[in-house]
Amino acid sequence: MTIPTHTREIHLAARPNGAPVATDFALVERELPELADGQILVRNTWMSVDPYMRGRMDDKPSYIAPFEIGAALEGSAIGEVIASKADIAVGTTVTHFAGWREHSVIDAASATPVDPELAAPQHFLGALGTTGLTAYAALTEVAKVEPGDTVFISAAAGAVGSVAGQIAKALGAKRVIGSAGGPVKTRKVLEEFGFDAAIDYRAGDLAGQLAEAAPDGIDVYLDSVGGEHLKVAIEALNQHGRIALVGAISGYNGATTHSTPDLYLAATKELTLRGMLVTSYLPLFADYIPKAATWLADGTLHTAETTYEGLDQAPAALLGVLTGANTGKMLVRLT
Amino acid sequence: MTIPTHTREIHLAARPNGAPVATDFALVERELPELADGQILVRNTWMSVDPYMRGRMDDKPSYIAPFEIGAALEGSAIGEVIASKADIAVGTTVTHFAGWREHSVIDAASATPVDPELAAPQHFLGALGTTGLTAYAALTEVAKVEPGDTVFISAAAGAVGSVAGQIAKALGAKRVIGSAGGPVKTRKVLEEFGFDAAIDYRAGDLAGQLAEAAPDGIDVYLDSVGGEHLKVAIEALNQHGRIALVGAISGYNGATTHSTPDLYLAATKELTLRGMLVTSYLPLFADYIPKAATWLADGTLHTAETTYEGLDQAPAALLGVLTGANTGKMLVRLT
Repeated sequence: MTIPTHTREIHLAARPNGAPVATDFALVERELPELADGQILVRNTWMSVDPYMRGRMDDKPSYIAPFEIGAALEGSAIGEVIASKADIAVGTTVTHFAGWREHSVIDAASATPVDPELAAPQHFLGALGTTGLTAYAALTEVAKVEPGDTVFISAAAGAVGSVAGQIAKALGAKRVIGSAGGPVKTRKVLEEFGFDAAIDYRAGDLAGQLAEAAPDGIDVYLDSVGGEHLKVAIEALNQHGRIALVGAISGYNGATTHSTPDLYLAATKELTLRGMLVTSYLPLFADYIPKAATWLADGTLHTAETTYEGLDQAPAALLGVLTGANTGKMLVRLT
Repeated sequence: MTIPTHTREIHLAARPNGAPVATDFALVERELPELADGQILVRNTWMSVDPYMRGRMDDKPSYIAPFEIGAALEGSAIGEVIASKADIAVGTTVTHFAGWREHSVIDAASATPVDPELAAPQHFLGALGTTGLTAYAALTEVAKVEPGDTVFISAAAGAVGSVAGQIAKALGAKRVIGSAGGPVKTRKVLEEFGFDAAIDYRAGDLAGQLAEAAPDGIDVYLDSVGGEHLKVAIEALNQHGRIALVGAISGYNGATTHSTPDLYLAATKELTLRGMLVTSYLPLFADYIPKAATWLADGTLHTAETTYEGLDQAPAALLGVLTGANTGKMLVRLT
């Protein structure tokens, strides 16, 4: 393989005002730097596209630094090492965090070699990556699902939600209810991902639909969306119910919500609402990956992917994941 | 002592629409029933007046049944047994839950004998009662204060808050900040209750005042008020901060708040918000009472009381506790 001298990247061209638009991004070609000692050159094959990235487009203090205007965006990616001045051999498959470009020059210490025999490479960005770990940690460590629980999962056709529903069943949940947007997705939630009930939030009356799907209330809620879902879940939770707060897509584009959650109810129902960042649970990977690889191999865990082809489609993929255009994991394949 | 044949009670005359008014209550004289086997007659000496009682005046589903129109209100009280057909001797001091009347005929099983040598009787409704236990459980079991924490306490001049600040210090908190309404209360928070800083929420700019009092953020927030305080606390909490949700006075009278707490921040800061009802922590009394009695006796724990005299003042006392007319525990003394 010839070692390329140039690569293409997606830069942040402007900070969005509300929902991002195409002109907030720019496709830029630039020269690759020489490898320094300890560095590797990775040819990226798949990029992960995640809702949290929207937050990094704003210039405001958060748990993670904003993207800089005129610089490449960053995110999880997987690829093959094609040049190395470090102790990772050429040919190794690695995941890393320097995506949104076709080739990445990175310190070997910031790359994680993976076993390509375990699963197809894109799974290391999804069910076997931080996406799957988010679902697993949310259910086992944060909301602590117990056998017999009724579990409600938002964005159930999405990357985290679709895996979470199946893990909840594996953990012994009595009933797992998923919310998704539109009849195509709700059917997938039921038929592909094995949820016991599915709610179409676009059909309205979220509270009524949830009451019908869970007549005895819910014990656990996995929240990826905030807004009306969170409000309705607090109302439906049983005494001592638990909420894992893993995101709030409905607010990422700055839309104001009139759905104020009733935290007085949270007090009297003795609920626990607990936020999480998957980066706090990385040590759990050691437990999780062998389990998840087995579940994937034996068909216990069904995954879905929505794939956009080519780096130039990455902005469209991000806009899509923020508006629910995906089923399962949103990915960009680089060719 | 003559055994009375009649007593006086405070009845719920009408359900309030917003803040209760005097005509929502009625002072009623009625005949006392004969004691059945297993029952005692208690002459009540002190009644506890608590914000949560406002919720029971509404006819809506909650964690505790609504008061009935035309029947006596109920709440914690302490008194002396003056007749007994049970194994509690005449002369015993007991706490019970059948207050809002001068005499209560109750099953002995629902009365708790207390040791009157330990403290003055009204303390068994305050620092040595569920009020103190609420503060203790919130800090030790719910928000899990650790040595070195910065702790923010709402309603810091109130019954729970004033005790909580002192317990937080005893648990090793580095800095304890209290919020109260007006300069008289904030001075008491500092001088009587030993907080490190006090915020006057009536002076406005709660967020700015809290930032000044806690320049490095807060680790724990004890919320008794909801609304703006809760919103501001979520913004000020450090990563992995904890909130004990013990009430929401600002919303008890049905006032709508425009202070929507940002639960996306709760997700990314990995906060834990946890509701509690003191009734879930009654077994902690065994640990708590000896500690608190020692703290009271040696002067570690300062308490304050606001006392209204006579049963007919009980409605005024309830209106007062809902609008912050009290410092420390709100009580009615029955003579």
